[in-house]
Amino acid sequence: VGKKVLHIGLFGLGTVGEGVVELLLRMENENKDYELILEKIAVKHLKKQRSVSTPPHLLATDPREILENPGIDTVIEVIGGVNQSKEIILQALRKGKNVVTANKALLAREGELIFNEAVRNNCYLGVRASNNAIYRLAESLVFSPFKMEKLIGIFNGTSNYILTQMEEEKEDFSSALKKAQAIGYAEQDPSEDVDGYDTANKLIVLVGLVFGYFIPLESLFIEGIRKISYEDVLFAKELGFKIKLLAIAQRGGEELEVRVHPALLPGNEGLAQLDGIENGVEVRDEIGVEVGMQAPGAGKYPTAMAVLEDLVCIANGRRSSFPWQEKRLNLKKMDEIKTKYYLRFNVLDRIGVLAKISGILGNHNISINSVIQKGRGRGVNNTVPIIMLTHEAKEKDIQSSLQEINSLSVVREESLLIRVEEGIC
Amino acid sequence: VGKKVLHIGLFGLGTVGEGVVELLLRMENENKDYELILEKIAVKHLKKQRSVSTPPHLLATDPREILENPGIDTVIEVIGGVNQSKEIILQALRKGKNVVTANKALLAREGELIFNEAVRNNCYLGVRASNNAIYRLAESLVFSPFKMEKLIGIFNGTSNYILTQMEEEKEDFSSALKKAQAIGYAEQDPSEDVDGYDTANKLIVLVGLVFGYFIPLESLFIEGIRKISYEDVLFAKELGFKIKLLAIAQRGGEELEVRVHPALLPGNEGLAQLDGIENGVEVRDEIGVEVGMQAPGAGKYPTAMAVLEDLVCIANGRRSSFPWQEKRLNLKKMDEIKTKYYLRFNVLDRIGVLAKISGILGNHNISINSVIQKGRGRGVNNTVPIIMLTHEAKEKDIQSSLQEINSLSVVREESLLIRVEEGIC
Repeated sequence: VGKKVLHIGLFGLGTVGEGVVELLLRMENENKDYELILEKIAVKHLKKQRSVSTPPHLLATDPREILENPGIDTVIEVIGGVNQSKEIILQALRKGKNVVTANKALLAREGELIFNEAVRNNCYLGVRASNNAIYRLAESLVFSPFKMEKLIGIFNGTSNYILTQMEEEKEDFSSALKKAQAIGYAEQDPSEDVDGYDTANKLIVLVGLVFGYFIPLESLFIEGIRKISYEDVLFAKELGFKIKLLAIAQRGGEELEVRVHPALLPGNEGLAQLDGIENGVEVRDEIGVEVGMQAPGAGKYPTAMAVLEDLVCIANGRRSSFPWQEKRLNLKKMDEIKTKYYLRFNVLDRIGVLAKISGILGNHNISINSVIQKGRGRGVNNTVPIIMLTHEAKEKDIQSSLQEINSLSVVREESLLIRVEEGIC
Repeated sequence: VGKKVLHIGLFGLGTVGEGVVELLLRMENENKDYELILEKIAVKHLKKQRSVSTPPHLLATDPREILENPGIDTVIEVIGGVNQSKEIILQALRKGKNVVTANKALLAREGELIFNEAVRNNCYLGVRASNNAIYRLAESLVFSPFKMEKLIGIFNGTSNYILTQMEEEKEDFSSALKKAQAIGYAEQDPSEDVDGYDTANKLIVLVGLVFGYFIPLESLFIEGIRKISYEDVLFAKELGFKIKLLAIAQRGGEELEVRVHPALLPGNEGLAQLDGIENGVEVRDEIGVEVGMQAPGAGKYPTAMAVLEDLVCIANGRRSSFPWQEKRLNLKKMDEIKTKYYLRFNVLDRIGVLAKISGILGNHNISINSVIQKGRGRGVNNTVPIIMLTHEAKEKDIQSSLQEINSLSVVREESLLIRVEEGIC
């Protein structure tokens, strides 16, 4: 058999695009049983200063130079965004070209459409780079005959870095965020990362690959980390937990629970050990086998590398497999979930406050596991924080008791709720 | 396209074989786009009591009922051992049957022969079960265009369980081993596990899959955990380390360093967190991307599940890929390796002993980072342990100084050396 050659068109020359070009150049002189030839790069600005130097004839501003070039068989999309990328990917697939994309936001919204188009045109659709090396695990899960029962993951490096900073430097959210922005871990508009959307996108793609269908983004419960103070991180630590922004998917019979929010994880859990920009995932299948995986959460090379792995798969004649399922599990409503809760009340330091709060919780069938009340007259207006860890309770009951507690005159700020996750076991 | 059907012959109905049968039965009524039909099981004893009940007509004692049955296209080998399994696997491949095996001892010795036979006959050779879920990582590494630079792994659940017991219960090796045997984590003859051979087999298979050739077992440095006392585990902890039985492979230019031995790992390293029978691996590639993975180290279901994943790959038309390499790296000699060392000397409690030992180390260009000397007159004959952590030194120099130190009259037991590993970074 002859050497397999891929003729590649690249859309986008930002950080990831530059990484892809660098790695392709680096491979050029190595002796492989396949060849990856970069034919054309579509960019917005021809003259922009870049960290890799590419021969000018490779650059083009008109997407058609790739999409309508029959000599190009494989398209890489790393421009990001949703509308333009969608058009590029669909057109490439309709022309019979293989597609490799890092675009989790697009896949989370249009995954079904895009995978269907790939199947219809018998093209390879490579999505490894949409969730970096976490995909390595997803890929092998696709070949497990037994379904995933539970998955928990840390999918956003920026948020994880910020939470680690809050713990280690006793910094508030906003100053930890500023530090993350200063060293390039967070965007100027950090919402995608810290409000949980990036995590949600990745979760939808992963659940899609494993379960064979895409959950609508709108149906997901998504909460970010903005309300967490470093005191919460330290109180959690005192109670034996770490606070992490988690992606959670859990199957129970014909119901599927999928949510993104910060959670207290037992300190000895694998994911609790992941600090800084690291990402990780733990999965338990229906037989009870548990596996875990960690990988860098972001960065030029990890993402570019994942793109290259997809190219190698194409060169090796692999076909992307998407285990399409018509039958879908019901999504569990957030109101119905049951878990333990960490609660922080900011109250005036008066006699009887604790009794009042515990009374309300008791009326809603919520029993308290432990309480931390320390210091006196801290915070504005002589408030003190009261921390409670509850036993298992229903989300609905917690929400209605918090509403009641927030309306007490001694409660001076909205109370904070963080859910507790037991971990994978 | 029609439904893909595999007709399976199973060799061996021990723990793993029973697990495979159980999982196949469990899948029977599920609607998949492939069908796995168990046609025949070759066993030694027809009438043996087993935990799964199989229809008697499935059982046979003559291997030819599988190997010479043209209706069977896929063979699972889970009998273990080396000679008989080798014959079964080679014969099956020569008959054009796909083979799935969990036999790491055989693969470590005859991997090259077996993979060549599979390629020659265009058969799938599935080896996922030889290293449980760790293979998930190896599989994705095969598709990385960039080579692994370093790998460290905990591949033996029994040894890891024993080391954890020694730390947590302050038990000696022999009583921790007895406990492991009592609960079924260790065999009556534990040598394969605690002397490092099982780890070495798995390492050879993993390095083979990633680098494209098999290293001769005889060329590997292999050391087990028998000499480690629980005091060593506690001294290591005091110095900020955990002792783990490690598989290490590291590339440096055209040289490859491959070894199996206990090592001190920094306590904050990912693998240092793995307690009990868990296995794990961390890999860094030449671009500097680091990934890690954990999975159960042993057990009926994890191994049986890995077998089933290979079956699903066959049913999905995947081809096993072995990136065969003619060009091989030189193996670094153990004498030439450089690392830091933990040393334990058992000496008479006399003035000047410490000076004498440090003098000898100094003469061999070994400089000392830290020393622990505690208590008085502990141990037999009024000996005390002196613990030293060295700066980086050459194995050769350490070995010759230990020889010299062991011949001192004040040194009453053979001194212990444990290598220090920095971790994956």
